[in-house]
Amino acid sequence: MKKFEEKTISEEKIFEGRVISLFYQQVELPNGKTSTREIVKHPGAVAIIPVTDEGKIVLVDQYRKPMERVLLEIPAGKLEKGEEPLRTAIRELEEETGYEAAEWNHIQSFYTSPGFADEYIHIYLATGLRKKENSASLDEDEFVEVRELSLEECLSELQKGAIHDAKTCFAIQYLQLKK
Amino acid sequence: MKKFEEKTISEEKIFEGRVISLFYQQVELPNGKTSTREIVKHPGAVAIIPVTDEGKIVLVDQYRKPMERVLLEIPAGKLEKGEEPLRTAIRELEEETGYEAAEWNHIQSFYTSPGFADEYIHIYLATGLRKKENSASLDEDEFVEVRELSLEECLSELQKGAIHDAKTCFAIQYLQLKK
Repeated sequence: MKKFEEKTISEEKIFEGRVISLFYQQVELPNGKTSTREIVKHPGAVAIIPVTDEGKIVLVDQYRKPMERVLLEIPAGKLEKGEEPLRTAIRELEEETGYEAAEWNHIQSFYTSPGFADEYIHIYLATGLRKKENSASLDEDEFVEVRELSLEECLSELQKGAIHDAKTCFAIQYLQLKK
Repeated sequence: MKKFEEKTISEEKIFEGRVISLFYQQVELPNGKTSTREIVKHPGAVAIIPVTDEGKIVLVDQYRKPMERVLLEIPAGKLEKGEEPLRTAIRELEEETGYEAAEWNHIQSFYTSPGFADEYIHIYLATGLRKKENSASLDEDEFVEVRELSLEECLSELQKGAIHDAKTCFAIQYLQLKK
């Protein structure tokens, strides 16, 4: 038995959407009691820390419907079915910012909300940036505004309480440590 | 109009659970086209970076049903309805680790998965730790194992690919920067 394993007694698929699915499970706990689990399945995602030759970090302002507000974030996107994460990252960087990168480095992968969702996000550092001539346009239903900030400007935004996104906080710390 | 606002045309509540709710929306995009949004509502959460006087970080191994595996994480928990986040943090630290802290500092708050969920997590640094004599027992349906690691041991776990949780990666970088 895996440590603390929770055995699935029954599972009901509540919803299958374009992006996520929702499952409702009855589980048996390690102490033999039963409980329920509400589980969101997500295809996984990538996020990119794009740094220009001048040391600017390329971020995007993006409207996020769950909280009905614009968040300042590093570029990110969902994996297409069967897509290799690096390929998603290359595509999303171009679609959201118009940049392509000469160098890609995988930094870290992590679950964003392990209590209720299986979303797993792969973080890449992208350097050697250059604007693509005919860059692929954005997703039809995605609207973002690109902002290029120095690390000091990012830290100032953070200080002001203007950054509210987990992966972006992680990215800023990463660049601070790398300095 | 807020920048890039997506207006809700219609909203259907698909599910209301013990922890999360799921909504399906039709929205009008800034370009006038329509799309759909799948949105998880979450009560919000706290996570604690507990550091002992000896400089050990108090972590927990916890089985996470969405990915059917044990993750090594900093202690965390959901907000009860109307509960002030610091109170949740004090309670969760005691329930999960048996520690109480003399000093609490709010470090950062962020959305964990802004693309599909509104979960907002408040991160606290807890120091001046001491074991409580009669600490409150764990949630009935929560099983965790406490592990106390030095920062160097945390970095080594990270290096080995043994840490897969976003808030824990954030916490480790935070402590590296603080050193």
